Amino acid sequence: MTASESLPAVLNRIDHDLDASVERLFALLRIQSVSTDPAYAAQCRSAADHVAVDLRSLGFETSVRPTNGHPVVVGKSGHGAANRAAPRVLFYGHYDVQPVDPLDLWKTPPFEPRIETLDGGRKIIVARGACDDKGQAMTFVEACRAFKAVTGKLPLDITMMIEGEEECGSKNLFGFVRDNAAEFKRDLALVCDTGMWDAQTPAITTSLRGLVYEEVKLTCADRDLHSGLFGGAARNPIHVLADILSAMHKPDGSVAIPGFYEGVPELPPDIKADLAGLNLTPEKFLGPIGLKIPAGEKDRMLIEQISTRPTAEVNGIVGGYTGEGAKTVIPGKAMAKVSFRLVGAQDPEKIRAAFRDFVCARAPGDCSVEFGNFGSAPAFDVAFDNPALAKARTALAEEWGKKAVTIGAGGSIPIVADFKTVLGMDTLMVGFALDDDRVHSPNEKFDLKCFHKGTRSWARILAALAG
Amino acid sequence: MTASESLPAVLNRIDHDLDASVERLFALLRIQSVSTDPAYAAQCRSAADHVAVDLRSLGFETSVRPTNGHPVVVGKSGHGAANRAAPRVLFYGHYDVQPVDPLDLWKTPPFEPRIETLDGGRKIIVARGACDDKGQAMTFVEACRAFKAVTGKLPLDITMMIEGEEECGSKNLFGFVRDNAAEFKRDLALVCDTGMWDAQTPAITTSLRGLVYEEVKLTCADRDLHSGLFGGAARNPIHVLADILSAMHKPDGSVAIPGFYEGVPELPPDIKADLAGLNLTPEKFLGPIGLKIPAGEKDRMLIEQISTRPTAEVNGIVGGYTGEGAKTVIPGKAMAKVSFRLVGAQDPEKIRAAFRDFVCARAPGDCSVEFGNFGSAPAFDVAFDNPALAKARTALAEEWGKKAVTIGAGGSIPIVADFKTVLGMDTLMVGFALDDDRVHSPNEKFDLKCFHKGTRSWARILAALAG
Repeated sequence: MTASESLPAVLNRIDHDLDASVERLFALLRIQSVSTDPAYAAQCRSAADHVAVDLRSLGFETSVRPTNGHPVVVGKSGHGAANRAAPRVLFYGHYDVQPVDPLDLWKTPPFEPRIETLDGGRKIIVARGACDDKGQAMTFVEACRAFKAVTGKLPLDITMMIEGEEECGSKNLFGFVRDNAAEFKRDLALVCDTGMWDAQTPAITTSLRGLVYEEVKLTCADRDLHSGLFGGAARNPIHVLADILSAMHKPDGSVAIPGFYEGVPELPPDIKADLAGLNLTPEKFLGPIGLKIPAGEKDRMLIEQISTRPTAEVNGIVGGYTGEGAKTVIPGKAMAKVSFRLVGAQDPEKIRAAFRDFVCARAPGDCSVEFGNFGSAPAFDVAFDNPALAKARTALAEEWGKKAVTIGAGGSIPIVADFKTVLGMDTLMVGFALDDDRVHSPNEKFDLKCFHKGTRSWARILAALAG
Repeated sequence: MTASESLPAVLNRIDHDLDASVERLFALLRIQSVSTDPAYAAQCRSAADHVAVDLRSLGFETSVRPTNGHPVVVGKSGHGAANRAAPRVLFYGHYDVQPVDPLDLWKTPPFEPRIETLDGGRKIIVARGACDDKGQAMTFVEACRAFKAVTGKLPLDITMMIEGEEECGSKNLFGFVRDNAAEFKRDLALVCDTGMWDAQTPAITTSLRGLVYEEVKLTCADRDLHSGLFGGAARNPIHVLADILSAMHKPDGSVAIPGFYEGVPELPPDIKADLAGLNLTPEKFLGPIGLKIPAGEKDRMLIEQISTRPTAEVNGIVGGYTGEGAKTVIPGKAMAKVSFRLVGAQDPEKIRAAFRDFVCARAPGDCSVEFGNFGSAPAFDVAFDNPALAKARTALAEEWGKKAVTIGAGGSIPIVADFKTVLGMDTLMVGFALDDDRVHSPNEKFDLKCFHKGTRSWARILAALAG
């Protein structure tokens, strides 16, 4: 029997095993694996061991691999378990969680998971990590478990990589992946750490915007000046900064830095049509934050502005007197922090250089500019013609009764760009988080329906990939 | 004998009395009349009494008049002493001084006045108040003393007003002048609290720029946002502020706010020629503060930019993340402080309203703006056809062997605008401070030559006014 032929039985098994699978998730949620706080190091190790034991029970050859920080759980199903024609996949997830403070805002203790029934009968799993990423990662593990139970084996060659430092920047994982590239270079990576479009509509995250972060310090006079004496003749660095920052955008909302759009792809018509079909309105997206008018490129849809288009933002500015009342100063210095969200093949270092040129070209000859480099990351995109993408869309549509949308995410999952650049591997990001999951906040939750149908979704995706 | 006929003897008297006049100044400098610190209230009262006693000895009918703060010394020479055809004058000065901190930067104690001889033989009087304003005010008093000694009377009807709160904003003097308007409304006010053009060139300050101070708080979203999620769609208040502040000036350096130049006078050709003759170069004015390129209106001389032209300056700006490192925030709010230096008949409240309209017209419909009013003062100008001005210029030229320049000052002497608006009286501002006098700073000094020739200058001006 092929994986697809086994699928109905697998889905059935998932349905009947739901209570037990929730109990297994609860066991993991009870472990206080807060990665950023050294006081929880032993709990992080416990979580890694717990995951390793579980994976071993599914037939994975499992090890808890040390790093300079918290360990990485690695599990390998081995070739024997797989259809040789199917892609070999790497599943990435993380067992660590965010800190829980402020603790007093939690209605119940964050590491005592519980099911709460909301008005209308909606059930939610409440705990730190219920969604991010224990709950989401376990949807994949439970799908594997159902295959194993029904067919006696896993449907694909699967390598598991469950790390313990995602919530503090995956700082040791980069070297781990580089050092063991051959081991983790598979045909496709799978990640379950992203969101649905809404509670009814599944989504595949096909891009993560990249980032360039710059600081600009502008010095005009070598001291602060009195505006009565010098006003009118002495260059004001706030004026210079305002001119530069204002010039950074054209009236049509596009970024005016020469070369900025180099490497920005146009969306394929079908993807663009899908995005248009989502009908993301300003009322829906901006209304909850008190805004009405999209601020980006005027010829782009709102959904494009926030996901598939690059941006330039001033994240901070300061200069002169900012206390109470009045002071008639012309400051000697002013500073701004500026970041760029990148898409497609935009080159972070080219963007950085172009920005610096743009600033220097506008700084008067008697002013000096210092730049600070606060990091960069390229954008990440799944090739829209990746066959796994089409298979996953079909599988998700079958589960949810609704076409899966492909969306771009503004935030990042640190290691995903490295999967592409270091391992040459695309990542299929499918996740079941909802906007109201309070990820990173008190009373984090995961809808039971998302956990259940998420597990079923992975079963369908695995079957589709197995062919 | 007329005052002019007496002048040679009066000047001779001043020369021979120099040592004694320095000693009288020292006696006043020893009194620690720091007005802003309540701990020195008794010393301020002592300084007032000291001045009153001195003025009484010159024949002034003198009183120490209470206010809600430090008292005002008022002296009246009475009609009997004056040539009825000459203008009745009000002399304004102040006996209070700035605080002395940081005390450890003083080479000698600030209230122990001394003469120091610099390289090249230049002698300076060093003490807090040596220049501002005890030394300057005493040039006028010593000129009166010399007239009294030589002619037995004062050359004009003179009212003295020596206050004790100039260094903390003259806050009680405004009401005092208003409440006693009839008493102080004379034909002309004289003030000795301004500077020379340089050590060789006397100056009459004919204008003080006015001021309007505004704060702008711009709110876009109702919270800080993550630039990954919202970047591209959410309005960034720093961008809006930068656009507004950048639009405030045209490329030619002029202010773009509609109506801003209403009431700004063009200089008479002779005054403009005088200013041009000063040849104030960027090297001279901007070089010492590390700048080279004048930042103001491109079609105006540097000297105009800093004195006779209005300006718009951003005195402070803040928004978003300004700490170390990177934070990808789109702030909900941003704030700027903006001030305008006014000249001529510019109406402060019209300028304020025009600025607010300018901002509001540029704020997107879903952003809100709050303004803060941090005060205003109209510009002050001496009418260039005031006959006293011509007389003073001639008198100064005779003393210094060099034409006196008429200059505009950027700073303000708070009460002078009220002399015009409340008492309908022009003010002739003649002073002998030099740029290196360290007024308000440690080691304040006044050149002995400035004190001596300043006294002689006032004698000449008084004689010229007396006709």
